[in-house]
Amino acid sequence: MARLVLKFGGTSVGNIERIKNVARRVKAVVDAGNEVAVVVSAMSGETNKLVGFCRDIAPLHDAREYDAVVASGEQVTAGLLAIALQELGVSARSWAGWQIPLETDGAHGSARIMRIDTAEIERRMKEGQVAVIAGFQGIGPDKRITTLGRGGSDTSAVALAAAMKADRCDIYTDVDGVYTTDPRIVEKARKLDKITYEEMLEMASVGAKVLQIRSVEMAMKHRVRVQVLSSFEDKPGTLVVDEEEIVEQELISGIAYSRDEAKVTVLKVADRPGVAAAVFGPLADANVNVDMIVQNVADDGKTTDVTFTVGKADLALAIKVLEDNRQQIGFRDLHTDGNVAKISVIGVGMRSHAGIARQMFTTLADKGINIQVISTSEIKISVLVAAEYTELAVRALHTAYGLDAVA
Amino acid sequence: MARLVLKFGGTSVGNIERIKNVARRVKAVVDAGNEVAVVVSAMSGETNKLVGFCRDIAPLHDAREYDAVVASGEQVTAGLLAIALQELGVSARSWAGWQIPLETDGAHGSARIMRIDTAEIERRMKEGQVAVIAGFQGIGPDKRITTLGRGGSDTSAVALAAAMKADRCDIYTDVDGVYTTDPRIVEKARKLDKITYEEMLEMASVGAKVLQIRSVEMAMKHRVRVQVLSSFEDKPGTLVVDEEEIVEQELISGIAYSRDEAKVTVLKVADRPGVAAAVFGPLADANVNVDMIVQNVADDGKTTDVTFTVGKADLALAIKVLEDNRQQIGFRDLHTDGNVAKISVIGVGMRSHAGIARQMFTTLADKGINIQVISTSEIKISVLVAAEYTELAVRALHTAYGLDAVA
Repeated sequence: MARLVLKFGGTSVGNIERIKNVARRVKAVVDAGNEVAVVVSAMSGETNKLVGFCRDIAPLHDAREYDAVVASGEQVTAGLLAIALQELGVSARSWAGWQIPLETDGAHGSARIMRIDTAEIERRMKEGQVAVIAGFQGIGPDKRITTLGRGGSDTSAVALAAAMKADRCDIYTDVDGVYTTDPRIVEKARKLDKITYEEMLEMASVGAKVLQIRSVEMAMKHRVRVQVLSSFEDKPGTLVVDEEEIVEQELISGIAYSRDEAKVTVLKVADRPGVAAAVFGPLADANVNVDMIVQNVADDGKTTDVTFTVGKADLALAIKVLEDNRQQIGFRDLHTDGNVAKISVIGVGMRSHAGIARQMFTTLADKGINIQVISTSEIKISVLVAAEYTELAVRALHTAYGLDAVA
Repeated sequence: MARLVLKFGGTSVGNIERIKNVARRVKAVVDAGNEVAVVVSAMSGETNKLVGFCRDIAPLHDAREYDAVVASGEQVTAGLLAIALQELGVSARSWAGWQIPLETDGAHGSARIMRIDTAEIERRMKEGQVAVIAGFQGIGPDKRITTLGRGGSDTSAVALAAAMKADRCDIYTDVDGVYTTDPRIVEKARKLDKITYEEMLEMASVGAKVLQIRSVEMAMKHRVRVQVLSSFEDKPGTLVVDEEEIVEQELISGIAYSRDEAKVTVLKVADRPGVAAAVFGPLADANVNVDMIVQNVADDGKTTDVTFTVGKADLALAIKVLEDNRQQIGFRDLHTDGNVAKISVIGVGMRSHAGIARQMFTTLADKGINIQVISTSEIKISVLVAAEYTELAVRALHTAYGLDAVA
């Protein structure tokens, strides 16, 4: 017997038939002798509809009212799934965030979970009742409904699993696990049986949109074992776990890519102490997130070129901020390029192995792909290339690191 | 300056444009210097959709989960209207039933209001903030969401008006007031300026579906002045008030009709003490509401025929109950007729005037309309006639009692 938190996303509960299907999946887990809590998202499309209503009335609206409106979607799904479970003879009740209570801070629209009192839910779980919990929501210090921001239901599920010391948190979704890379690009992509929290974080942050980053961070912090699996097929998914749980660690776990970034080059900045602060200070003040950074000394030896990437959505703002501060920074020109892709090789194994980076650069060079920027972390090497090379680069690296599935 | 509770039904908040329109109406009332609370229904169609979801999953479903699902509709409208008011520069916040709290008993799906704590809302109203309250819902002793049953938002509004000692409760709807009779049948129907609670109750209970009966009962009990008016046109509606407030009371206030009843005749029941109990006891046990009742002694002097009406929806159940108890009741035959209409003449004036009933019978006789059953109360005379005479009877009585509008 185990204690499990199951989470079903919007597509999995998108209509009445699918909600009934989820109830059958949950019943099977209950019948196997487990204590079960279920976290649900709103039916697919519902949250967008409610967000649209708020925007149509006022583009800039009170986040507290937004929360009250938008959180209703999960409330509906939770009630409907409880009914569907009862119809199958499974004892169940729905819980809104305020009923648990799942207490958050007061940052309406993107609240952070502060405390979850799971005593009553745990008591009922021990008696065999399934707790069906509305994801994405809590109650703030003002006793009003809060929401956790997009994808917050994953975070709800992991936080609940941590609070009730669940043996595992199963995230049911429309993919059947985490792959070595995007299967739409690489036919030979393999589903991973296991992946470490650290790797999953890097995978999530570079475009493999399986799990919300916040939920992975929370799982890592509280050591919650997470499984990503399909809500439509009955087979094991990918376990996201602690490094020690993975006996045969592969060198590289996956190749990720992102086309959501743009490159900015600030040309001929005076090469003096404090130049980085002059460039990046104003950007930070404007909440522009900067990712990869390189700095070259220019030919004249007196100026330097600074290149970095920002989210594509922030590019216009970044340009404006730099131009507004042109005098202060003192640069000659500004080049931008939105037509780039970031390709990343990820694996905790690279900590103890040399040559991983060299293999990446060689592989790309062999295909004639020019590397524009390089950045590395302990378990990741990322390069910026022209966007048109994305698929070619991902496929070549996937083969080079021996990730291709054996036919 | 007055303290007002305004209530807007589903049609009035049926889409974003209409919600914005409601916000403008509310702003006008606020700008006139009033303290304002607003009670809203779900957007039209929304409650039916949610009820349909519950039924599709399980025809017989947990009323507590039904409440959690269905109450979300009003939560959405309340949040959206608060946003719309803020957009017009009016301070506003939404309140779900559990936030107020509006405490009810535990009869999920048709809960009764027990207590409303309006202290915080009143404090904010005094500071100029509009309370936008989700109608139809409260919180039960189990700390779960309850709903008040269909049309419960009227009841929410009147109960709130009573609790906060409001000067008036304005029910905005898609008609512009209470008419002497159904304007779709009688072209010369007149809008009433005022009507007493007692008359309104009778009007509501016989098919003039302007206000929920429960809300009128509650208004009468707590002496809440209620106005029924149009949410689309800016003009006075009909005031539902205490009899003393009406200086020039008309003899008859209106003619109502209902085609929702069916006639049942139990033939040749032994005429002995306790026969009524034998017939109506089992019906009451089965929750069949019986309305008009007449009993005739049959020709043989030893048996009696009992005729009564039940709601059409209950007819099949009534027949089953009677057949099941046939031995015990001891009757020869059962006749039923769903093709009937109840026509009612209503007016507090009839308490002090003789001849009202005679005028009714004469008028119907003149038109060749046969009266099947008669029942009377202090302020109402109802007759059952063949359904095909409904319009003819209503028009003739409207003219006979001098209710026709002067062209």
